[in-house]
Amino acid sequence: MKAIILHASKGNLPQHINDKKSSKYSNNGRRLGHCTEVPRNVNMENLQSGYLFPEISKRESEHIRKYPDASLIRLGIGDTTEPIPDIITSAMAEHSFALSTVKGYKGYGEEQGNMALRKAIAGNFYKDMGLKGNEIFISDGAQCDISRLQMLLGSNMTVAVQDPSFPAYIDSSVIVGQAGKFQQETEKYKNIVYMNCTPENGFFPDLSTTSRTNIIFFCSPNNPTGHAASWKQLKQLVEFAKANGSIIIYDSAYAAYISDASPRSIYEIPGAREVAIEISSFSKFAGFTGVRLGWTVVPEELVYSNGYPVIKDFDRIVCTCFNGASNIAQAGGLACLSPEGYQALNSVVGYYKENAKIIVDTFESLGLKVYGGKNAPYAWVHFPGKSSWNTFAEILEKTHIVTIPGSGFGPGGEEYIRVSAFGHRECILEASRRLKNFYT
Amino acid sequence: MKAIILHASKGNLPQHINDKKSSKYSNNGRRLGHCTEVPRNVNMENLQSGYLFPEISKRESEHIRKYPDASLIRLGIGDTTEPIPDIITSAMAEHSFALSTVKGYKGYGEEQGNMALRKAIAGNFYKDMGLKGNEIFISDGAQCDISRLQMLLGSNMTVAVQDPSFPAYIDSSVIVGQAGKFQQETEKYKNIVYMNCTPENGFFPDLSTTSRTNIIFFCSPNNPTGHAASWKQLKQLVEFAKANGSIIIYDSAYAAYISDASPRSIYEIPGAREVAIEISSFSKFAGFTGVRLGWTVVPEELVYSNGYPVIKDFDRIVCTCFNGASNIAQAGGLACLSPEGYQALNSVVGYYKENAKIIVDTFESLGLKVYGGKNAPYAWVHFPGKSSWNTFAEILEKTHIVTIPGSGFGPGGEEYIRVSAFGHRECILEASRRLKNFYT
Repeated sequence: MKAIILHASKGNLPQHINDKKSSKYSNNGRRLGHCTEVPRNVNMENLQSGYLFPEISKRESEHIRKYPDASLIRLGIGDTTEPIPDIITSAMAEHSFALSTVKGYKGYGEEQGNMALRKAIAGNFYKDMGLKGNEIFISDGAQCDISRLQMLLGSNMTVAVQDPSFPAYIDSSVIVGQAGKFQQETEKYKNIVYMNCTPENGFFPDLSTTSRTNIIFFCSPNNPTGHAASWKQLKQLVEFAKANGSIIIYDSAYAAYISDASPRSIYEIPGAREVAIEISSFSKFAGFTGVRLGWTVVPEELVYSNGYPVIKDFDRIVCTCFNGASNIAQAGGLACLSPEGYQALNSVVGYYKENAKIIVDTFESLGLKVYGGKNAPYAWVHFPGKSSWNTFAEILEKTHIVTIPGSGFGPGGEEYIRVSAFGHRECILEASRRLKNFYT
Repeated sequence: MKAIILHASKGNLPQHINDKKSSKYSNNGRRLGHCTEVPRNVNMENLQSGYLFPEISKRESEHIRKYPDASLIRLGIGDTTEPIPDIITSAMAEHSFALSTVKGYKGYGEEQGNMALRKAIAGNFYKDMGLKGNEIFISDGAQCDISRLQMLLGSNMTVAVQDPSFPAYIDSSVIVGQAGKFQQETEKYKNIVYMNCTPENGFFPDLSTTSRTNIIFFCSPNNPTGHAASWKQLKQLVEFAKANGSIIIYDSAYAAYISDASPRSIYEIPGAREVAIEISSFSKFAGFTGVRLGWTVVPEELVYSNGYPVIKDFDRIVCTCFNGASNIAQAGGLACLSPEGYQALNSVVGYYKENAKIIVDTFESLGLKVYGGKNAPYAWVHFPGKSSWNTFAEILEKTHIVTIPGSGFGPGGEEYIRVSAFGHRECILEASRRLKNFYT
């Protein structure tokens, strides 16, 4: 008999003790309740700790309980704070009202999304890249499509990720069974190839020493480092994928924040249509984090080793596992891409970029080395020799500012913290003051 | 060298011919383009034909091309047609407008959904069943949560489904690798247990001859048969699951259509909290097919064979693979559950039920045996000895009415068609006239 003691994060679950016959007994042998004979998914068992962002929220809540009167500044989870321009919310409100009319009522839309929106995305974000509307699939956010892509790919895939990177790539990889066991000594999953991205290599992996994998997750501008890969770097990446017969899953969720000439899409690189899927989002570009809207591009030329087009399988997944994004959110997306909507959003993006500059300047004035912030709404701050969870905890405790420990994005993020530029200006300025007070 | 010729449903894909080295050549040996070395997921290969509903849409479109002047009546895909009551759309519009204000702007919500909505669902649909808000997870629709549940369960699961049933259960099971090979002779997947539901067994499976599986998908009121399981039947089902250590995934998406004393939730049955997950939706209850909102209940008492609570793994999936339903849709959901919203929606449901009665009466007047329609918005019509695809095609060709062939829901649906009661009254009456003209 094996004793298993569990604590649910929410609610009051009893302690369970179970035997082989899957009944539960308390320590004195009294039966407590029914236990199914359904084995827990070994992949779920293999997941390490909680998903990063809910974990940060939990720490936030604990801090608030400890200091109920402190004025907390949230520069942790990259959550937009500024109002959405009127022209966009009016379009969503109009769509809502129309649903109460016989003429304006709409039921199921196409699972792949409204074709007008798909074409507007092709025209706005992929001008001169030859993308067609039918290659663009509207989603309820990039994170959701990462999981749908993982369902599409299945367990029998080798995967490479940037280290550090957005944790959903690895976590979804573990869930579908691609990752192998977690190894405590390296803090890495056995079967995942970690492509280290550091200031030393220009935040771009040394591809000459990178193993061949089926799938390469690549995020640019990168979350968390804020680095936007250059045209030359992305050309190398596409050539690497082509030579290895790999598929790149390119995450361009932060493309709107690029200030220099770095590519905003992988499809700016010749040949990318044959090797790359691109996922992207309205979340950070349009403040749609709560409205939920994104898209995924699967070019017709992208085929599996047997010649079968990936787009056909992705279409099947979208039809079977998804039923389209909310039609109200899609109406908003269309308004985002109108000339007036687009211009208004650029002002909001510009506001967050000014925030980013204030944050970068603050940490630099403290003598710290700061990356990112220029092409992304995140500053990536180096605290040499210090554990990132300790730095996170120290900043929270001493300044009531929530950041994110770099190691939450992979072992390559150790010694760093990620600071989000999403916030009201007065909060950013107040954060700057508190940090300067504490560190000087 | 093996020639593979493909035709994409959309767009113009080239024909591909590939060799082992995964390059593509035309018939005369000229290389056509790059081919990756990524193997296609064998589970995707294992899926039979397209997903049913997009296939029906395709047939509709073909019919419209053939008869551009015909007035098509769509009683195929169960898509709501009546306006959403003002009180609900106003709440969504108000939420949209507020997103343009500093005070009303909201970014990411809780991945599990707005707690006020979770509690309102517990209070409205699960009164006296002891469900707590934290056991209810808001989704963007039941179909999406079926896939998320399949990701949670993984490939190493045995599964039973009602035959006939909503195709997403089996298709998602194939995608995650639970189903085994499709067998042409039986039209069944090898590893899935098909629980035949016919008029002869009161549309409830003979559990004394049903094999034990880890998971039992059970939809009541059933889509497509329209049968709502009785309290006695569901009690049997819960006892069967308990005795076998199985988990029931109970789909109550059509519960609002129940007219008699049949249970509206599996949790009306004592002990169900220890064996059942319930998925449900605002789609058919509130006309939210395009707005996208649903929920899933995972009780705290439901545990795997090792005693680990399923709710903890589902929470992890929701946080990692989903980012919450649109906050605008959630504001609408809350308005649906206000006393005025709820009352207004009951009128709309009542309207569709009257439609259903007209449809049932029509087919009965033609001397056909009709099931469903009383506790569900679907009539299930028997055409003895006739192939259901042929009946579908004949009705479409002769009356310009789209239905759904019963065999699309599994081999047990052969000889039947499903007729949806969603439609404007004048369309339902016109459909009734056309059917009577054609069949008498």
